[in-house]
Amino acid sequence: MALLRAELGDRVDTSPDALAAVRADKSGHASDGTPLAVVHAASVSDVQAVMRIATATRTPVVPRGAGTGLAGGANTGGGEIALSLRGMDRLLEVRPDDLLAVVEPGIVNAELNALLEPHGVWWAPDPASRAISTVGGNIATGAGGLLCAKYGVVRDAVLGVDLVLADGRLMHLGHRSVKGVTGLDLTSLVIGSEGTLGVVVGATLKLRRLVEGERVTLTALFDGVRAAAVASAAVTASGVQPAIMELMDARCLAAVHRLLSLPEPPPGAAQLTIQTDGPVAAAEARTIAAVLTAAGGTVSVAADDAEGEELLAVRRSMHAAMESLGTTLIEDVSVPRSALPAMFDEIARIERKYGLVIPTVAHSGDGNLHPNFVFEGPDVPPIVWEAAEEVFRAALELGGTLTGEHGIGVLKRRWLADELGDDQWQLQREIARVFDPLGILNPGKVFAA
Amino acid sequence: MALLRAELGDRVDTSPDALAAVRADKSGHASDGTPLAVVHAASVSDVQAVMRIATATRTPVVPRGAGTGLAGGANTGGGEIALSLRGMDRLLEVRPDDLLAVVEPGIVNAELNALLEPHGVWWAPDPASRAISTVGGNIATGAGGLLCAKYGVVRDAVLGVDLVLADGRLMHLGHRSVKGVTGLDLTSLVIGSEGTLGVVVGATLKLRRLVEGERVTLTALFDGVRAAAVASAAVTASGVQPAIMELMDARCLAAVHRLLSLPEPPPGAAQLTIQTDGPVAAAEARTIAAVLTAAGGTVSVAADDAEGEELLAVRRSMHAAMESLGTTLIEDVSVPRSALPAMFDEIARIERKYGLVIPTVAHSGDGNLHPNFVFEGPDVPPIVWEAAEEVFRAALELGGTLTGEHGIGVLKRRWLADELGDDQWQLQREIARVFDPLGILNPGKVFAA
Ligand SMILES: Cc1cc2nc3c(=O)[nH]c(=O)nc-3n(C[C@H](O)[C@H](O)[C@H](O)COP(=O)(O)OP(=O)(O)OC[C@H]3O[C@@H](n4cnc5c(N)ncnc54)[C@H](O)[C@@H]3O)c2cc1C
Ligand SMILES: Cc1cc2nc3c(=O)[nH]c(=O)nc-3n(C[C@H](O)[C@H](O)[C@H](O)COP(=O)(O)OP(=O)(O)OC[C@H]3O[C@@H](n4cnc5c(N)ncnc54)[C@H](O)[C@@H]3O)c2cc1C
Repeated sequence: MALLRAELGDRVDTSPDALAAVRADKSGHASDGTPLAVVHAASVSDVQAVMRIATATRTPVVPRGAGTGLAGGANTGGGEIALSLRGMDRLLEVRPDDLLAVVEPGIVNAELNALLEPHGVWWAPDPASRAISTVGGNIATGAGGLLCAKYGVVRDAVLGVDLVLADGRLMHLGHRSVKGVTGLDLTSLVIGSEGTLGVVVGATLKLRRLVEGERVTLTALFDGVRAAAVASAAVTASGVQPAIMELMDARCLAAVHRLLSLPEPPPGAAQLTIQTDGPVAAAEARTIAAVLTAAGGTVSVAADDAEGEELLAVRRSMHAAMESLGTTLIEDVSVPRSALPAMFDEIARIERKYGLVIPTVAHSGDGNLHPNFVFEGPDVPPIVWEAAEEVFRAALELGGTLTGEHGIGVLKRRWLADELGDDQWQLQREIARVFDPLGILNPGKVFAA
Repeated sequence: MALLRAELGDRVDTSPDALAAVRADKSGHASDGTPLAVVHAASVSDVQAVMRIATATRTPVVPRGAGTGLAGGANTGGGEIALSLRGMDRLLEVRPDDLLAVVEPGIVNAELNALLEPHGVWWAPDPASRAISTVGGNIATGAGGLLCAKYGVVRDAVLGVDLVLADGRLMHLGHRSVKGVTGLDLTSLVIGSEGTLGVVVGATLKLRRLVEGERVTLTALFDGVRAAAVASAAVTASGVQPAIMELMDARCLAAVHRLLSLPEPPPGAAQLTIQTDGPVAAAEARTIAAVLTAAGGTVSVAADDAEGEELLAVRRSMHAAMESLGTTLIEDVSVPRSALPAMFDEIARIERKYGLVIPTVAHSGDGNLHPNFVFEGPDVPPIVWEAAEEVFRAALELGGTLTGEHGIGVLKRRWLADELGDDQWQLQREIARVFDPLGILNPGKVFAA
């Protein structure tokens, strides 16, 4: 601590409020014990100094962006340092001609995009938390978003990463050219590594040009979630690529309508919300509307962009609506798109078996479901974990994965080896050890048993 | 050898022709010494058996697809086993609704796409060698192609890989869902790893739907390569995304015209060949034609698909045209797109300095250049390596990379640490050692000093 203060002065924060705040993220889960300190890094050399001191003293360090994670990955416990990158938030370079930008890790996703817009470009990953989460956190979690079925996830949108290792060394991974196969692709390895391989202190992002043409937004109501899931798979199979395709089951839809004081939806109705964009958006929307109607949906098309935004606001209010009902454990399984109806069947079966309700939304354009478990009080009850475990197993059996975008963090580490197998779990852990031989980077996350 | 024969019988080939063939790939470079054997694997368990025997006897193994590589990566030397995957060439599953296919590694790229077409889908990576290279080789090299500026490279088109490790264990990396952030992204790590991490024995590929609408192909002639490069950057900056954008300098253009017995191009003329596709292909082609004309180009638009194919055949005949001139060392640097003109200036400077001609083509839509060094006889003369080294350094200084798509293999391993830095080189090597502790997988490639 004295070492930290000597090198970093008042960027070391030990106020009780700060220490309490970094114990948790938005997962509803908090670490035990009181962290040693929060360091508000202002530069790459601050980060290097923290890691050198941490290595010398074998002190665990938890990198932290905005703390909006849903897996407990940034939660900092007793004896640990929270290393906040939030203050390093500059946009260092924009090159619209090369479709790239160089950023510090703490810049908030939506702020970055506001700065990029006048240049006619954008960074596509758009987690629902884009107004509050950092680009560094998005990279560390491999975030997805509403638009990612058409425009890709973080993995598709990063050219290079500057990484400070556990011992304080700085590595420049990747390059500024769009193509490159020199050596192993460590940039991809860092994406989604949840702070276990190093601290992301800078990134070269791959941009897209702003999409020209109009946007058309439509919704379709169905008799229950299975019908909506079948319709969503039919849209995918039709070959038209929506920019957004989101599914809300009846419980979610009703809860959001209550929260936003909208008229009650028909009982049992599930909803698809779809947006097309680009030069042929209108024609695509017509094709999709026909597919949805044929699948038994009641379709309504937004008259204009403003009405389209209102329709999407319903989907974007999901998290708030769930929070209004109680404590929420938001799950995040992903399955091949054709398996969506089967996955909803499994969720219904698990609801019956455990006597729970599991309101579920899905980024149905890419097969990523968020089953929500709502309960009273701060701790996840054992029966909820049992049911969640059955949800995970069902997703794996359908060829899917434990987590489509939120990460493993602390909340899912128990199940990681189930998906990877023991051999691959061990291999991955050994790879992490190459970056961090002492195991001081975000210990207890992802790989801890 | 006796062990191999006992387990694999006549799939072990020690005929002098076979042993001679696997000493080389298409790089013009061959290994020293005589390989021990070529094993024609017919199944995953064959591959596992070879690796178990190799581990027990510490015998080096070189995985091999079709041997079309341009970096010497599949070249097999004295005391080494060539493990050919070419015979494992089945398409195991196609799911147009999920846009995925499961394949064995030895299937040839173009054959796969011929099988996919009736399902209305395709696998986008299209190296110019697609008619002769394997999907496993494409994955192991992280191949690119003509269409990759618009439709992505191999890294964007693989969901999962089945990998046999050096000790014979089989790992299933990745998943069938399009999204997933469970643990470290080892699938991406294997892409482009050139046989140093394990043997790819299966892959789950991410497909695209066949592009609807027309294709429009156009060429533009310029007064020299710099003007063509500036025009190419102007097209990129205009915001229109061509499916293909290829640049040929005057020497390349003249050589291909000679090879194909076409009329001689105007002296000193460099050419851009551009194709647009999709629903707004015609409008995009008009915009591009205007940009090219404004940049001083003489534009001609193909009347139909057949004429378009003829224009592209000129570009596709490059490799043959160079081979007709002598032995060729095909380089493969990549730079940010706006740096293309500067990179051509550097090549011109290096030509003058060394008194060499360096005919160059570029996938200019993504900043990937192939400078060709042509010489007599089988061995690369020292002066060519000196000049090539200066080309590499120039690309690195422009923010680019040593290899955009061909890989490091043996031919570029001397320069790998220049790009990565010693620390990252060491880190990458240690990661490879986690997969292959004894260093028996493709030793001497990529990481050997
Ligand atoms: C309302 C709401 C909606 C959401 N919607 C989505 C969604 O649609 N899609 C989605 O993917 N996620 C979503 N999330 C989850 C969350 O916002 C994302 O995971 C986000 O990427 C986290 O960014 P952060 O800056 O808050 O990171 P944090 O929560 O601070 O950290 C997340 C993880 O990344 C690590 N980390 C953070 N910064 C760095 C760094 N610079 N270097 C190394 N490691 C680092 C941390 O150690 C931790 O393991 C949502 C969250 C909320 C609250
Ligand atoms: C005329 C011509 C044009 C070309 N155009 C392009 C182009 O446009 N873009 C491009 O990227 N490349 C191009 N190439 C290079 C070459 O075709 C590619 O690198 C291709 O991906 C190699 O595939 P292959 O099956 O021939 O692999 P090989 O040459 O057999 O092997 C290449 C490397 O991959 C490893 N490997 C192969 N299969 C496996 C496996 N199953 N598991 C593990 N490792 C494996 C080998 O050890 C070696 O290191 C071209 C080559 C030629 C001759």
